Amino acid sequence: MELNVYLAGQIHDDWRETLKQKASKKDLPIHFFEPMTNHDRSDNIGEEILGEQPNAIFKDEAASAFNNLRTNVLMQKADVVLALFGDQYKQWNAAMDVGAATALNKPLILVRPESLHHPSKEMANQAQVVVNDLDQAIEALAYIFQNE
Amino acid sequence: MELNVYLAGQIHDDWRETLKQKASKKDLPIHFFEPMTNHDRSDNIGEEILGEQPNAIFKDEAASAFNNLRTNVLMQKADVVLALFGDQYKQWNAAMDVGAATALNKPLILVRPESLHHPSKEMANQAQVVVNDLDQAIEALAYIFQNE
Amino acid sequence: MELNVYLAGQIHDDWRETLKQKASKKDLPIHFFEPMTNHDRSDNIGEEILGEQPNAIFKDEAASAFNNLRTNVLMQKADVVLALFGDQYKQWNAAMDVGAATALNKPLILVRPESLHHPSKEMANQAQVVVNDLDQAIEALAYIFQNE
Amino acid sequence: MELNVYLAGQIHDDWRETLKQKASKKDLPIHFFEPMTNHDRSDNIGEEILGEQPNAIFKDEAASAFNNLRTNVLMQKADVVLALFGDQYKQWNAAMDVGAATALNKPLILVRPESLHHPSKEMANQAQVVVNDLDQAIEALAYIFQNE
Amino acid sequence: MELNVYLAGQIHDDWRETLKQKASKKDLPIHFFEPMTNHDRSDNIGEEILGEQPNAIFKDEAASAFNNLRTNVLMQKADVVLALFGDQYKQWNAAMDVGAATALNKPLILVRPESLHHPSKEMANQAQVVVNDLDQAIEALAYIFQNE
Amino acid sequence: MELNVYLAGQIHDDWRETLKQKASKKDLPIHFFEPMTNHDRSDNIGEEILGEQPNAIFKDEAASAFNNLRTNVLMQKADVVLALFGDQYKQWNAAMDVGAATALNKPLILVRPESLHHPSKEMANQAQVVVNDLDQAIEALAYIFQNE
Amino acid sequence: MELNVYLAGQIHDDWRETLKQKASKKDLPIHFFEPMTNHDRSDNIGEEILGEQPNAIFKDEAASAFNNLRTNVLMQKADVVLALFGDQYKQWNAAMDVGAATALNKPLILVRPESLHHPSKEMANQAQVVVNDLDQAIEALAYIFQNE
Amino acid sequence: MELNVYLAGQIHDDWRETLKQKASKKDLPIHFFEPMTNHDRSDNIGEEILGEQPNAIFKDEAASAFNNLRTNVLMQKADVVLALFGDQYKQWNAAMDVGAATALNKPLILVRPESLHHPSKEMANQAQVVVNDLDQAIEALAYIFQNE
Repeated sequence: MELNVYLAGQIHDDWRETLKQKASKKDLPIHFFEPMTNHDRSDNIGEEILGEQPNAIFKDEAASAFNNLRTNVLMQKADVVLALFGDQYKQWNAAMDVGAATALNKPLILVRPESLHHPSKEMANQAQVVVNDLDQAIEALAYIFQNE
Repeated sequence: MELNVYLAGQIHDDWRETLKQKASKKDLPIHFFEPMTNHDRSDNIGEEILGEQPNAIFKDEAASAFNNLRTNVLMQKADVVLALFGDQYKQWNAAMDVGAATALNKPLILVRPESLHHPSKEMANQAQVVVNDLDQAIEALAYIFQNE
Repeated sequence: MELNVYLAGQIHDDWRETLKQKASKKDLPIHFFEPMTNHDRSDNIGEEILGEQPNAIFKDEAASAFNNLRTNVLMQKADVVLALFGDQYKQWNAAMDVGAATALNKPLILVRPESLHHPSKEMANQAQVVVNDLDQAIEALAYIFQNE
Repeated sequence: MELNVYLAGQIHDDWRETLKQKASKKDLPIHFFEPMTNHDRSDNIGEEILGEQPNAIFKDEAASAFNNLRTNVLMQKADVVLALFGDQYKQWNAAMDVGAATALNKPLILVRPESLHHPSKEMANQAQVVVNDLDQAIEALAYIFQNE
Repeated sequence: MELNVYLAGQIHDDWRETLKQKASKKDLPIHFFEPMTNHDRSDNIGEEILGEQPNAIFKDEAASAFNNLRTNVLMQKADVVLALFGDQYKQWNAAMDVGAATALNKPLILVRPESLHHPSKEMANQAQVVVNDLDQAIEALAYIFQNE
Repeated sequence: MELNVYLAGQIHDDWRETLKQKASKKDLPIHFFEPMTNHDRSDNIGEEILGEQPNAIFKDEAASAFNNLRTNVLMQKADVVLALFGDQYKQWNAAMDVGAATALNKPLILVRPESLHHPSKEMANQAQVVVNDLDQAIEALAYIFQNE
Repeated sequence: MELNVYLAGQIHDDWRETLKQKASKKDLPIHFFEPMTNHDRSDNIGEEILGEQPNAIFKDEAASAFNNLRTNVLMQKADVVLALFGDQYKQWNAAMDVGAATALNKPLILVRPESLHHPSKEMANQAQVVVNDLDQAIEALAYIFQNE
Repeated sequence: MELNVYLAGQIHDDWRETLKQKASKKDLPIHFFEPMTNHDRSDNIGEEILGEQPNAIFKDEAASAFNNLRTNVLMQKADVVLALFGDQYKQWNAAMDVGAATALNKPLILVRPESLHHPSKEMANQAQVVVNDLDQAIEALAYIFQNE
């Protein structure tokens, strides 16, 4: 059995690479899907494809259309969604992914430092599991495959 | 025809009362549903019902269970979801409601000041309509009922 | 038993009034839902609510968001969708409504003059019934209520 | 990861071949599905299989049944639907495919020249992304696979 | 609480009136929905609305479109489907209704004389309850409302 | 707003009456649905309607068909499911109702004494809220209606 | 692309082998799924697995449970359902499969001799295509794969 | 064709190994999925990943979150669910799996000794097939693959 896992969350640092290396060390048969993690490209993809837009709002609208195309395709292929929250940025699209995943009955692993327990409490309650860091997240994924 | 509209968003001020008065002035046949808007009670409802919890994290988990019970029941009865975002608070549960509403094919009205266009761009793209303030939101709702 | 019927199709003449009068003469217990039939307002609703847009394309995008909000709400409440096609205008949004209605398992009555049988053939095949004019459409609706 | 993409739209010229060559140049792991693109055969398939029909309307009904069998099977297997519109033909079945795809939560790429923005505005609003030509469409598909 | 019950089965005798009288005697709050029970009209409704068809096959196709419009609308409104089978006629459309009802998760009451147990065995296994006659069917419906 | 609440659980004592009285004291606009709570009748309903069965196993199969007809109809009409567990009886059908309710996205209130936390732990995790007794359950239901 | 096709219909002769040979000659990449076609075994499978049953009705109930397990698993895996009807036997389970397939949005090919057009008319109307014999059915399946 | 089968039920003895050996002897192309069958690890997995919890109730809540993550992922991948019940333990999570499987339209094989027919009667009625032991269960699975 192989699993597809979509990695929702901020794209300002390389936490996804860290997670993938941890999964690789445990030989977990997981395909990780992710949003565009080049932050500048994610912001500019609308104008890159469609050309210059009238103002910053329309530039954002254009970019988000292509980013959501990607997210929607990949989330439909995912067996599990893992969403990471930190103490920087608004991370509203990650929270939106949490809502979509649970409404679509995709089991969700929520990763957040304990210090964020209060603002994330309704998300935590909807998640299937809540963990504090990437090591615990990998253990949760590994547990699905373990037999003893 | 009557509509049920769920009002997602922060519960720190009385924006829902403002909106309901605007709807009332226009005689719109709308039933508004909302989360517990007494902020203290929303935070304490877990311990109010279940008694003292071991620590703040478990207090939050207990409270969010009852808050999500309310949200899940009311969102399933809603024909339209209206979500308001402002520049204060993390508002992750409102963003989660956005994701759930769109995944459940509930038409979504997103209300946010233009200044927040960048962090809300993926939510804006998933929403059916995006408006800047409550007056525009009421006009959007009213348009559903107007014939000329 | 009462039925909700959504009336998809062009908004350049008053065919919906004609249909509603025919239904009224037969005392059919039907609530008819419809798009904004004031054509100018339908085209301008985006700028009416959101203010002036950068160009005609963005004006159209803004208007269609509010028009689709209305259509999506009303189609979800409909028990039957009736879509009328004529020989003027592109009528792509009516054809889109046909696709959405059949994908949502809403029984569809397609009304088109026989002369249009070739371009409408795939829509006709997806429809539950195909009729040539509004009199036949009313007979189809009336048949649902008749007992002998 | 591989994707299945259904190519909706007119079958009077070879735009699908052009698109497939562009995808092939970029080595995109995409399986393209399409309707019968031999226009005469598409019109005659009903009589080809079932024999002569009473008149042109029944010939069309017979043909569209087999064409829709094909479309329904292929669209259910598609991860993404790409629909192209031009300034010729009514293209109602392509618009119907747009409605079906969005109702089935299939992410939709709408391709249309800017000149058609007005009649396609409600379809554009329902689409996940709207682009002006096939080069932009390929860039949208490629973006799903790119990591930086 | 009130229930909507769709009465599937042959339309050659007045078994539905018998059933409705039994329900009426017990004051059950049930709305019964049914197909057109005037057999001749059911066979002729296609030509009645659309005019003469090329041959008997097309006459049947036209009639069944209007009959299925009615069935599809009413079955979607039903809380329970009751399907009666007897030893005359092929009753394929009633059997089709059984398949549709169970696939749509509509609880199904199958009524058939014991003598037909062999040909109805797969339908019986898919039904929620199987009874031998209309008196037992009414008892099954009544049981839903009884408290002691 | 009114709510329909299905009361799953054992039928050996009158806990449902106790709960309904508590709801009545608080004037909650709730319609409670429940299984047949006359235990003997619940066990005998199969033979009551269908006549004597070959042995105890077939008697049980016959009875459960009518009991499940009732449960399936009522659970589909429920907005919330409340399931009570105690320390007597196997209560497998109540646990089955828990699984069905959560799979159908019906918000679930689980009521069990704390002493049963270990055997009920997977059910507790799937439930929206877990409470220890009927007073807490009523508070949870009341919270859905309260505004401050 | 490969397709899974479930072959519903009577199991008294070897029409499925005939069909599979025709598909094989055309090298169609189709996996055919089918019910148990050994008629005696299909009737006896309940007692074969569970032992002797009290009477013929219970023997049938036992057999149909295992036959429906098979049908339900295979129909869920099918991309297309092909149902054949002839002039012998009641064929109610095949008609039930027609209803289930269309309710599950599985494209359906109905095969029946023209002489049966009247009793099959409602099924014919729900089917995606209707053909007269197995040669036409194979042409319909082949058309899904053909490009010119 | 290969099948995925989820094995629900108690984890106190090695009945799953017995079943898998029986399937292996018959060369059935089945992938068996199962919960964590190391009972101690299943109870402790919450604290193993998240660290010590405040008390036994929270330890159970933590463990069940990871156990349900596993169950939810695997049940969604299953074509068939097999649930075994015995006369020891409460087995409420297995009964919950029965409810979830049937609500998700996963065909269910219920295995229970005849002596348990009374408490399992509502589950038995919802199951697709009911058998008495693992040998009969294997025969039921094998029957799906057999052609004569």
